[in-house]
Amino acid sequence: MPAHACDDPLQIGVRQFNSRLLTGTGKFKDLRETRLATEAAGAEIVTFAVRRMNLGQDATQPNLLDALPPTRYTLLPNTAGCYDAAEAIRTCRLARELLDGHTLIKLEVLGDARTLFPNVIETLAAAEQLVAEGFEVMVYTSDDPILARRLEDIGCVAIMPLAAPIGSGLGIQNRYTLLEIIENAKVPVIVDAGVGTASDAAIAMELGCAGVLMNTAIAGARDPLLMARAMRAAVQAGRDAYRAGRIPRKRCASASSPIDGMVG
Amino acid sequence: MPAHACDDPLQIGVRQFNSRLLTGTGKFKDLRETRLATEAAGAEIVTFAVRRMNLGQDATQPNLLDALPPTRYTLLPNTAGCYDAAEAIRTCRLARELLDGHTLIKLEVLGDARTLFPNVIETLAAAEQLVAEGFEVMVYTSDDPILARRLEDIGCVAIMPLAAPIGSGLGIQNRYTLLEIIENAKVPVIVDAGVGTASDAAIAMELGCAGVLMNTAIAGARDPLLMARAMRAAVQAGRDAYRAGRIPRKRCASASSPIDGMVG
Amino acid sequence: MPAHACDDPLQIGVRQFNSRLLTGTGKFKDLRETRLATEAAGAEIVTFAVRRMNLGQDATQPNLLDALPPTRYTLLPNTAGCYDAAEAIRTCRLARELLDGHTLIKLEVLGDARTLFPNVIETLAAAEQLVAEGFEVMVYTSDDPILARRLEDIGCVAIMPLAAPIGSGLGIQNRYTLLEIIENAKVPVIVDAGVGTASDAAIAMELGCAGVLMNTAIAGARDPLLMARAMRAAVQAGRDAYRAGRIPRKRCASASSPIDGMVG
Amino acid sequence: MPAHACDDPLQIGVRQFNSRLLTGTGKFKDLRETRLATEAAGAEIVTFAVRRMNLGQDATQPNLLDALPPTRYTLLPNTAGCYDAAEAIRTCRLARELLDGHTLIKLEVLGDARTLFPNVIETLAAAEQLVAEGFEVMVYTSDDPILARRLEDIGCVAIMPLAAPIGSGLGIQNRYTLLEIIENAKVPVIVDAGVGTASDAAIAMELGCAGVLMNTAIAGARDPLLMARAMRAAVQAGRDAYRAGRIPRKRCASASSPIDGMVG
Repeated sequence: MPAHACDDPLQIGVRQFNSRLLTGTGKFKDLRETRLATEAAGAEIVTFAVRRMNLGQDATQPNLLDALPPTRYTLLPNTAGCYDAAEAIRTCRLARELLDGHTLIKLEVLGDARTLFPNVIETLAAAEQLVAEGFEVMVYTSDDPILARRLEDIGCVAIMPLAAPIGSGLGIQNRYTLLEIIENAKVPVIVDAGVGTASDAAIAMELGCAGVLMNTAIAGARDPLLMARAMRAAVQAGRDAYRAGRIPRKRCASASSPIDGMVG
Repeated sequence: MPAHACDDPLQIGVRQFNSRLLTGTGKFKDLRETRLATEAAGAEIVTFAVRRMNLGQDATQPNLLDALPPTRYTLLPNTAGCYDAAEAIRTCRLARELLDGHTLIKLEVLGDARTLFPNVIETLAAAEQLVAEGFEVMVYTSDDPILARRLEDIGCVAIMPLAAPIGSGLGIQNRYTLLEIIENAKVPVIVDAGVGTASDAAIAMELGCAGVLMNTAIAGARDPLLMARAMRAAVQAGRDAYRAGRIPRKRCASASSPIDGMVG
Repeated sequence: MPAHACDDPLQIGVRQFNSRLLTGTGKFKDLRETRLATEAAGAEIVTFAVRRMNLGQDATQPNLLDALPPTRYTLLPNTAGCYDAAEAIRTCRLARELLDGHTLIKLEVLGDARTLFPNVIETLAAAEQLVAEGFEVMVYTSDDPILARRLEDIGCVAIMPLAAPIGSGLGIQNRYTLLEIIENAKVPVIVDAGVGTASDAAIAMELGCAGVLMNTAIAGARDPLLMARAMRAAVQAGRDAYRAGRIPRKRCASASSPIDGMVG
Repeated sequence: MPAHACDDPLQIGVRQFNSRLLTGTGKFKDLRETRLATEAAGAEIVTFAVRRMNLGQDATQPNLLDALPPTRYTLLPNTAGCYDAAEAIRTCRLARELLDGHTLIKLEVLGDARTLFPNVIETLAAAEQLVAEGFEVMVYTSDDPILARRLEDIGCVAIMPLAAPIGSGLGIQNRYTLLEIIENAKVPVIVDAGVGTASDAAIAMELGCAGVLMNTAIAGARDPLLMARAMRAAVQAGRDAYRAGRIPRKRCASASSPIDGMVG
């Protein structure tokens, strides 16, 4: 639906995108499946772990850039696997070098190998340094509204709170904190992590998120390509519903006022 | 996505449909908006209240059949506003007469003008009679799995449990009863009533519903046409996600087993 | 807290009770545990399956009446295991005979051995007959507000909707239907079935239920006596909270109005 | 039930308590109501804002210490109203002075006057300093498991994550993060903020929290004393249920395994 895409673009820094579904490239069977799923998802921004993905350093292995050419996709190198600011910063510099000066990166500094929760202290430190070095930083963080604002103040170009732990598939756990972040941000808020199925993505968008990033939910589905298509439609559905203005929730059609929060 | 539609049709009685989103025709500004919203929703089956809608009986008023011609849409006359079996049966017979022998109808017998909950006793009685008279009965009912089975045994061609009260926009209130109905039905189970926004429709489909019917959620939205498009995408997203096989829900990616229901 | 109990009794028919926690007698290790759990729960009304429990018919087996003497407890014979009205009516007559004219009974007519959902059609038929025969009928039913009202109109002395399937431990699945039943009933509404843990019981009471009946949640806990005590406190807590008038739910303390149902 | 209290004490630092319900002293009508509610709640630890409460500095005003004598209650001075580490540290030192060397304090450093979310960066800084100065720090924080562990590593004697914004009454928003914190902590985890009614407190305890702290939910109820009693029972109920080992959640009693998280 190109007509729609044009009148409601996602703006990240100076770039504009038609798709609001960002996808990861890991966990697929092979790069062919990565490519097909990316196409089915209609993604324009694709993220990959700099420390795990071959961009040509190893000429004997498949190269991500062949599957997802930078001429067609906006590559988003990420710092998955980094546990402190220094590591994350080094990784971003490496990505810039490998990609000829590319500055758009996704910063994630993990606190824990088991839960993959972010370490927000190290994340803040890394974000400050990276912004100072001219990177455009999209930042994975917790759903803490105070930290989200601080990351925006530092100059991050997108705030990416988790909906639930990476790879958990639990869906949006705390709608109020996300809403708090969304309503107070001037940069895009993109849910990163925790989405399990299509309705989770739709809910994120209905809350007012600017986009959703996911990997496991697609790559780990029984049929990744069909799930990629589902997610594409879900993100569009949620965005449209958000813009269309849903009906209020009421006890019944004849109720005179929306439910008042006494139940639920 | 016509390729997809072909390989996963919705079968109701002898008919096949590509769309799994059924829409109501009431509550729109005028019949023009009804038509545009129906088109945006991609609906093939459209329901209308026999007792409220003009099918040409009154030649001075706009005629639904002009807006939604039976050559293009499968009309689904419904018995909205009927409070006992006798009334509902009479209404169906009237519809058959007005529509030249049309037999596909949506039976709803209400228990209460305030909540619009079904009166399941009268519904059962009416369903038995209508099936005996050769109607193909799609039946609005509660989410009671025992009654759903009985309605199927009577010969109804689709079971249509409410997700929440008509017009409430509360979304799916009881996933377990719906799942119970879906897993034990051989005819399509179509959520009828209660959907408020796109994710609600996606959730219904992810549970395994064969379709979703809605009216207020579209007609009552701030922008009905945009919401119609959202719902179309949401139903498709939910269906695809259901077929694609979602990832299990786990505490975190490294958890060895899905969550065991001790939380939530 | 006897002072409290006195000023807020549970009235069922002509009887008054201080405790709002009704307990089942089955699934315990032995009748001694049944007795101790009943005491720990502070229950005054105890229910038992007429078809399974020995009230002295078999003199070689332990007798429920020794463990829970009718002088101390109000016995509530139930029709568990009955799948049609005739069976349930016969069972109630048998109970009346065994208990010397006792008329207070819990009617349950099941629709299905797997889910233990009620068969509401047979339940209605049995309730009509039993009321006509002078029984005081407390009735297990679905959470259908229209049927609940009809059971009340027939003359049942308490409406006992399920919160979730018997023995499921899923907790309150549909707060809106329960609320609808509660707000429109003049007889006590007692949640029967589905409670899994203490907070479930508290939630039922906070919705305005007059009481909660449970068996598996106590008998199936790792420590049934401790869980019995937990449930006693939970029912009291929920009742007190209901009467005390909780604070509204708001986005934050400084919000000017309660949440409007747009989230959740 | 003193027998119970003895065998399951709450241990904070070197102190032991029988009650797991901690209460605030603000927002009541007057100090008399504060005292009566505290008694009804059975609280042993009572918190107050050092910057707002009169401990005798103003001899013309009612003195909190008269209503809640330190001989009977463990006073817990808190830093409500502080927005940076320096302010919070000064406030704790003032409390120590006013209370003759008292070292147990509740640290809260707010990030925002509207949401009252914590500023976790300033909280960490203050906690480090206060522990170094010999304070026993109970610390209000977000539900971030990584930060919770860091606060424990610093030497805080209790971790007090919010369940929802202070004064919101929204109840537990994210059970998984709380569970993550609880399962990995060696010091007590006490939910601080967000509880609205009795079942919320029970749920917190069922998750395994060591205690619950609340103020608005009691002081803001229509009948604060009755709500205080409700909360006392709810905390006890939740604790007992946690220790008693609840039944698993299953689709129905006959299901062979607990629900697998595919629904909900």
